[in-house]
Amino acid sequence: MSDWIAPDWIAADWGTSRLRVWAIGADGAILDRRESDAGMGGLAPAGFEPALLALIDDWLTPGRATDVIACGMVGARQGWVEAAYRPLPCPPVGPPLTPAPVSDPRLSVAIVPGLSQTRPAADVMRGEETQIAGVLAAAPNWDGVVCLPGTHSKWAEVSAGEVVSFRSFLTGELFALLAGHSVLRHGMGDGWDEAGFDAGLAEGMARPEALTARLFGLRAEGLLSGLAPDTARARLSGLLIGAELAAAKPWWLGRDVVIVGEGRLAALYARGLVAQGVAARRAPAEAATLAGLARARSLALPPAAAGAP
Amino acid sequence: MSDWIAPDWIAADWGTSRLRVWAIGADGAILDRRESDAGMGGLAPAGFEPALLALIDDWLTPGRATDVIACGMVGARQGWVEAAYRPLPCPPVGPPLTPAPVSDPRLSVAIVPGLSQTRPAADVMRGEETQIAGVLAAAPNWDGVVCLPGTHSKWAEVSAGEVVSFRSFLTGELFALLAGHSVLRHGMGDGWDEAGFDAGLAEGMARPEALTARLFGLRAEGLLSGLAPDTARARLSGLLIGAELAAAKPWWLGRDVVIVGEGRLAALYARGLVAQGVAARRAPAEAATLAGLARARSLALPPAAAGAP
Repeated sequence: MSDWIAPDWIAADWGTSRLRVWAIGADGAILDRRESDAGMGGLAPAGFEPALLALIDDWLTPGRATDVIACGMVGARQGWVEAAYRPLPCPPVGPPLTPAPVSDPRLSVAIVPGLSQTRPAADVMRGEETQIAGVLAAAPNWDGVVCLPGTHSKWAEVSAGEVVSFRSFLTGELFALLAGHSVLRHGMGDGWDEAGFDAGLAEGMARPEALTARLFGLRAEGLLSGLAPDTARARLSGLLIGAELAAAKPWWLGRDVVIVGEGRLAALYARGLVAQGVAARRAPAEAATLAGLARARSLALPPAAAGAP
Repeated sequence: MSDWIAPDWIAADWGTSRLRVWAIGADGAILDRRESDAGMGGLAPAGFEPALLALIDDWLTPGRATDVIACGMVGARQGWVEAAYRPLPCPPVGPPLTPAPVSDPRLSVAIVPGLSQTRPAADVMRGEETQIAGVLAAAPNWDGVVCLPGTHSKWAEVSAGEVVSFRSFLTGELFALLAGHSVLRHGMGDGWDEAGFDAGLAEGMARPEALTARLFGLRAEGLLSGLAPDTARARLSGLLIGAELAAAKPWWLGRDVVIVGEGRLAALYARGLVAQGVAARRAPAEAATLAGLARARSLALPPAAAGAP
């Protein structure tokens, strides 16, 4: 069924729980895309090359080392090889990339380093820097704020082509822990209630300091007034995102904000910002990742290297 | 080894994870105390009577039904029998207690109902009402605020012998989830660092709205500057308790506060309040529970019942 393809290079987004790869043609077109659950979280160092080959073996050309440019937790200390954080301020991606040890001569793997910040608060990112680079690749002279929703959501200020500051929030992980593993799990549904989200958002924004009391309040409302499970789940999401937006106010108030993502989580952040009068633009996550990885490759390799024997 | 004892009645504190019982003499003295891990969380309705008998069988007298007065999650909907919440404002304990179904004629079990509040925010408690009653038993005319640290810590305002308002915080459960099950677990020790706690407390008090960002900051500091695991754990505790104290300010500012508990958690709340210039008194938890259960029994039973055949 599948046609034989020989990509110019291969893009890889290798997170804690998933591995996604794209075969990229010489003209930059996406020739194919695949993914697996071989995330960094479940792999020992020796497991990375086999996990990658399991997805891309038939994309490789005998006698030639095809470049694989990877971003994400694959470069963490517990990953394939540690790609040391680059300290701010700096462009979101830049040389050198970190080579990963491979035994297959058809492979050449390089990992994009994450970013770190020590002031005004210690913070790190790994993977998001590539998406920020992708946003900048589409608008090189743009200054503004990139919002990256996720397990550990991030707000990054970009100016003159550099990331100058960012801040991470544990919002996504807190939602998963609270909905799945806390006392609140007893009253959580799988569905959604948009009005419940809006109510939680307003509560979280108005009194972010009361978050831990509001959380228990969801349980109490479930016991006392039969709060609908879908409403409880949406309220929880709204409370947490609302508290994040309250704390992140300096990042979005009067700023030009781009939200990376097209899924439901990004839509919730956009909805929250609209409620504050901020019309954030949206950037598709896959396009941002691929543009960022292409940018990282172009900066890292000398011009002749891509075609070298 | 053990002497035979015939308690006048038996006090039981039956929470989600533990069952604690005390044999009480006719003069109110504690004749014996025992406990097991037969918490409500692991029992089906039919399992409660056997779990209780496993601890107290030799305390019972053939031919006589000994009263067991129980408080805590044993009275939850998923417990032995549901003891419906009593709505505020009301005395912390009061008739009627809820009888639990027993088959052993030597047993008569009654459960203390919890308290509920619908305004200004939905909230519930189950077990803490008994400790509040114990605090009031020692000082019947006292007006003030009772702080009850725990998995779901509570602040209760008491006036003219009634609980008029209270608020619960998910602080303790959040600490357990974050320290044991979030990304922060990678940098958590088993020890403690008092200065780390104080630093977290100050951060949490000063900017409670930034809690979810500060949480991720602990992970970042671990990666970037090798934050000591014991310091990280103490900072996490301080951040969460600090955020609670910030949100609970109306409960303690200029108020007469009693903290129930003699353990480390209660000491941390006391330390946090002292940092704000509030010298809260401490009430031992066991004494409060037993005094509250005795109070519940005295209110629930007609004067002759205790000695009835």
